[in-house]
Amino acid sequence: ASQLWRDRWGRESHASSMATATSIMRVQQLLLAQFDAIAGRHGLTFARYEALVLLTFSRDERLSMSRIGERLMVHPTSATNIVQRLVAQGFVERVPNPADRRGAFAVITDAGRAAMEAVTRDLEAADFGLAMLDAEQHEVMFGLLREVRVGAGDFDG
Amino acid sequence: ASQLWRDRWGRESHASSMATATSIMRVQQLLLAQFDAIAGRHGLTFARYEALVLLTFSRDERLSMSRIGERLMVHPTSATNIVQRLVAQGFVERVPNPADRRGAFAVITDAGRAAMEAVTRDLEAADFGLAMLDAEQHEVMFGLLREVRVGAGDFDG
Repeated sequence: ASQLWRDRWGRESHASSMATATSIMRVQQLLLAQFDAIAGRHGLTFARYEALVLLTFSRDERLSMSRIGERLMVHPTSATNIVQRLVAQGFVERVPNPADRRGAFAVITDAGRAAMEAVTRDLEAADFGLAMLDAEQHEVMFGLLREVRVGAGDFDG
Repeated sequence: ASQLWRDRWGRESHASSMATATSIMRVQQLLLAQFDAIAGRHGLTFARYEALVLLTFSRDERLSMSRIGERLMVHPTSATNIVQRLVAQGFVERVPNPADRRGAFAVITDAGRAAMEAVTRDLEAADFGLAMLDAEQHEVMFGLLREVRVGAGDFDG
């Protein structure tokens, strides 16, 4: 696709940015497909697994619904759907938020923690789909991705 | 998140693969949010824009529905939804597939080509959200992403 793009719009026209952006999108698709398959072995999707990881690492292992959407960077409706599915599976419980009578906290359960840990073990066994990169390549790639995140304001505020 | 992960599971446990994978996912989210906003100025989403790009670069500017889903790496249902929206907007026409009476081709219209080119100009003006990387960094990043794609079998068959 990058070659076609260059032929059509010329080398000058941000072809290298386009090629990098396309590759990031593609690699994300490839990794997500693998991660979804791994999470699926334990009755989860990668999105629901991410929510469980987020809850595990939160103070008191609980988060408000709005904070979950924010942290996962998904639409509030998607955050609600994800938590509803996790509640139906017994991996998360909803408890009232004393500070906000209309809001609720999501709290991870023991079963949720066990499922999360099982997926983590399988992701580690698969080396997160990135076994083809050595330690130095990881460091370089992580540094470059970090520059993009800094440039996009991901670490502000 | 990477720091927390390391504290919890130890440095040995694929922490660098996890950090790289998390960063790829995050950068994809940041880019997609920007690309969706740019496509939105022209009544499109980035997914619909990608479908228009795909049709533009296809022989005869037409593709079967199943091929669109394959190439965009989305579920056939999503491919159908994307094309239906584009048809409703007058950016794509459906024409019968002479080789498959139950199938159909999607063909880009002049309006579709104009919308696609307008989004492309704006994406180029935004340097695909990657203006923070210089030419050498693009080359290194593209090369590393290519290794991941090769390792994941993206260029097979």
